[in-house]
Amino acid sequence: MYTVQQIADALGAEAEGDLSLEVTGLAEPDAARKGQLALAMDPKYAGKLAEGAAEAAMLWQGADWKSHGLKAAIFPARPRFAMSGLTRMMDPGAGYDRGIHPSAVIDPDAELGDNVSVGPLAVISRGARIGADSVIGPLAFVGVDAVIGKEALLREHASIGARVHIGDRFIAQPGARVGGDGFSYVTPEPSTVEQARKTLGDRGDTQAQDWARIHSLGSVRIGDDVELGMGATIDRGTIRDTVVGDNTKLDNQAHLGHNTVVGRNCLLCGQVGVAGSVRIGDNVVLGGKVGVGDNIFIGEGVIAGGGTNILSNVPAGRTILGYPATQMDKQMEIYKNQRKLPRILRDIAALQKAVFKSGEGD
Amino acid sequence: MYTVQQIADALGAEAEGDLSLEVTGLAEPDAARKGQLALAMDPKYAGKLAEGAAEAAMLWQGADWKSHGLKAAIFPARPRFAMSGLTRMMDPGAGYDRGIHPSAVIDPDAELGDNVSVGPLAVISRGARIGADSVIGPLAFVGVDAVIGKEALLREHASIGARVHIGDRFIAQPGARVGGDGFSYVTPEPSTVEQARKTLGDRGDTQAQDWARIHSLGSVRIGDDVELGMGATIDRGTIRDTVVGDNTKLDNQAHLGHNTVVGRNCLLCGQVGVAGSVRIGDNVVLGGKVGVGDNIFIGEGVIAGGGTNILSNVPAGRTILGYPATQMDKQMEIYKNQRKLPRILRDIAALQKAVFKSGEGD
Amino acid sequence: MYTVQQIADALGAEAEGDLSLEVTGLAEPDAARKGQLALAMDPKYAGKLAEGAAEAAMLWQGADWKSHGLKAAIFPARPRFAMSGLTRMMDPGAGYDRGIHPSAVIDPDAELGDNVSVGPLAVISRGARIGADSVIGPLAFVGVDAVIGKEALLREHASIGARVHIGDRFIAQPGARVGGDGFSYVTPEPSTVEQARKTLGDRGDTQAQDWARIHSLGSVRIGDDVELGMGATIDRGTIRDTVVGDNTKLDNQAHLGHNTVVGRNCLLCGQVGVAGSVRIGDNVVLGGKVGVGDNIFIGEGVIAGGGTNILSNVPAGRTILGYPATQMDKQMEIYKNQRKLPRILRDIAALQKAVFKSGEGD
Repeated sequence: MYTVQQIADALGAEAEGDLSLEVTGLAEPDAARKGQLALAMDPKYAGKLAEGAAEAAMLWQGADWKSHGLKAAIFPARPRFAMSGLTRMMDPGAGYDRGIHPSAVIDPDAELGDNVSVGPLAVISRGARIGADSVIGPLAFVGVDAVIGKEALLREHASIGARVHIGDRFIAQPGARVGGDGFSYVTPEPSTVEQARKTLGDRGDTQAQDWARIHSLGSVRIGDDVELGMGATIDRGTIRDTVVGDNTKLDNQAHLGHNTVVGRNCLLCGQVGVAGSVRIGDNVVLGGKVGVGDNIFIGEGVIAGGGTNILSNVPAGRTILGYPATQMDKQMEIYKNQRKLPRILRDIAALQKAVFKSGEGD
Repeated sequence: MYTVQQIADALGAEAEGDLSLEVTGLAEPDAARKGQLALAMDPKYAGKLAEGAAEAAMLWQGADWKSHGLKAAIFPARPRFAMSGLTRMMDPGAGYDRGIHPSAVIDPDAELGDNVSVGPLAVISRGARIGADSVIGPLAFVGVDAVIGKEALLREHASIGARVHIGDRFIAQPGARVGGDGFSYVTPEPSTVEQARKTLGDRGDTQAQDWARIHSLGSVRIGDDVELGMGATIDRGTIRDTVVGDNTKLDNQAHLGHNTVVGRNCLLCGQVGVAGSVRIGDNVVLGGKVGVGDNIFIGEGVIAGGGTNILSNVPAGRTILGYPATQMDKQMEIYKNQRKLPRILRDIAALQKAVFKSGEGD
Repeated sequence: MYTVQQIADALGAEAEGDLSLEVTGLAEPDAARKGQLALAMDPKYAGKLAEGAAEAAMLWQGADWKSHGLKAAIFPARPRFAMSGLTRMMDPGAGYDRGIHPSAVIDPDAELGDNVSVGPLAVISRGARIGADSVIGPLAFVGVDAVIGKEALLREHASIGARVHIGDRFIAQPGARVGGDGFSYVTPEPSTVEQARKTLGDRGDTQAQDWARIHSLGSVRIGDDVELGMGATIDRGTIRDTVVGDNTKLDNQAHLGHNTVVGRNCLLCGQVGVAGSVRIGDNVVLGGKVGVGDNIFIGEGVIAGGGTNILSNVPAGRTILGYPATQMDKQMEIYKNQRKLPRILRDIAALQKAVFKSGEGD
């Protein structure tokens, strides 16, 4: 429970009215109960305030809070950004109990920092090191010699494989997984795939052969403030490590292949799939379901729209879309022009009739 | 074990022959052993009956069962629909033992209805409530204050996060997950992504900034008769709940982002990805790998073919396909016309030669 | 630890220099420490050797190893293939302890072969049979009457459902799952989807109806030497089994629907999604994010590039790409021609002006 004053101070926002009023949670304006802080940060939500029972609200700049029957109001400079601090203060969290649950299986040679919690039926393996104030959730797994920094949160069923290194403040949502083996197979002679890639299809004399496994001896190295969504997966590298930079976030079911290196402060949205040996610069945003082929380079600051399929290198700063990935404005033009094809065909037929019939007639 | 009579009665189907014949299971006609009910509900399978050893079969209307050497036959009015009742009767299930396994970790403040089973090494947290006749499978997890209705089945490794509310007859296939945090980040000043969305690529003066996390305080509310496939994931909402309506089914690895509301009786096929704050009406069918961008509205009864990428709102009743999503018949025409482009280029060249050369020659 | 001689012998490769030199691991040439074998199998890495401290290296044919300050060198005939044997020798593995962990829950009616290891908090159910020398990892699950061959490795959180049959040398990466129910629903009368498929969109008189579940009574049958990536999922069949042939590999988050039959020696890359009742021949390679619609047939040796969406049958031997799947060379031509559409529109406008204006002027 916080007072309006405390919240405004935490957000560096102005507030008016009864600043000692206490709020216990957040709500959309029409659903707000008494004691909740209503979120109505755009004038379009003004009408909704009357439908709820909030006495305090976070409002758009310049709102006439008294006219909405409120007792207090907070006015953040950039409401969207204020949501970060506000939701952090109010987050009820996963509700795990603190301390080490007696059913957890912790190897005597694992090393737990101060104030680490371990949930029921979690497994922490030999040689693993967990930083202070971390929480290892129920049924989670930490492998042999894995290192996790301080203030980590591993949710239920998350797993960190052997020898993986992770920085501070790591968050793994339920079932996120780090440290599977890379998908790497080879044939005794050059394979049909190696040949088809060179020729766009012609296999020449190559024959199908049995795939032999290349094992993954590398590990995964993850920076500080990284978050992985539910079911996200990161493979270990073949010889060197797969790498994820500081403050990079992977959404649910995102996937990074072996040897891939992702820069800092990237967002990889839901179901993004990045193949092996890809290099991704800093501040890259890949929309939902974006695919990236192996050995691709994606420059700093690239933004890819949802569903983009990246089959070749992308220079820094580009905004791309489509299959195959194309600059977004050009791709939108292609989409538009595709719909003109029936008209194009009619126009050509008319021209042919005019030009060649008359020509024949001469 | 059921008699032919019992099966016919359960399905409301006609039957002929020795109705007291007992069957122990179902089989394709050529693989059927004696004692199994062969499924040959289309005349094209008639020849296969002789390859198997079934004495009873479910056949197409009007089939001459005696000529196939059968002792009994069932004739459902709509064979495809009869498969629902028939497979429900014959399902051997997951084979879990009944009762509470002693290795399960059940918080004393959790509340279990009558006849609930809990498998080995499952975890049920403080304040959770599980309805009567539910089965919580091995290694499954139910979070703090989560509520699950009656007759639920959580398969191995499924997880339900804190405070999630689920209706009756819920099925979570292995590793299905509800209640991870939403993927929601914000920058102190408007981000390059906010700008690029407005302009289709031009970032103006915006600069890369570090992403700050917006926490998910909402939960997930799921109706009755919902099923989630293996590895499916549903995020909690930011302030309000993410919602899934009655009788809606998500296939393996389908994904729903934060705040998204899905109507009743929808089918979301394998690897469908729905971003945050999407609204999907009732009776919508999204084929395999369909992607839906954030804040999209999809009207009632929409059907999207496999791989469709939905980047803008879709009115009710549409059948769509493609990337970007287009009405299916128009999309098929685009695909066809794309293949005509080489001919179009040749035709234009011929016209140019005819028109401009002759023009020059004048 | 191996000597250079031992490694060369194992790979059938030539070696020169001090063959008794021992190496403890592999490294990229610039990162190699003393005691590691540097991998520099292409002349482009020659310069990197000086940056590291390796005394032994695996080099390209004909390399002048002495000039790089090495004491020994190995020269494999096909370096890429040599990586298979080399990484197998050097793999440090998942680091699991051998033996049966006391916290594992093993049903007394399960049958474990010689030398099987079971990790902490794993569950092995009644009637399950695990072949000799297999390793069931921490928190893994094996269902009722499931059969797994010898030398299997189930990593942490992997799960094998009831009655699944798996051959020898199976590998399940973390969280891989076999044996969920198929995604199969039916309506009392023909559904809008059945109708829309026939007509490309026109629903006629069909109305939305509630979906009824078809249960999965079949199981999953998997050959020898199969590997499943993290989060990969395979559904059981409806009546017959879903089948995966020998030596076929599924990457992370790949998905196989109910009744689908995959041949031998196939590679299904990251996030491949295969719907129900698909038949895939031997030696097929599906690139990352490839989607396959239900009831499709894919012939032997087909190679599909990343993101391909397969909506109709593909004859043996084809190399395909795109949405919808098209022969790769033709698809590349389509991509190229799409970019010419603005020019096509301009050319047509110019022709129209020339042809019809002059025509009018006559």
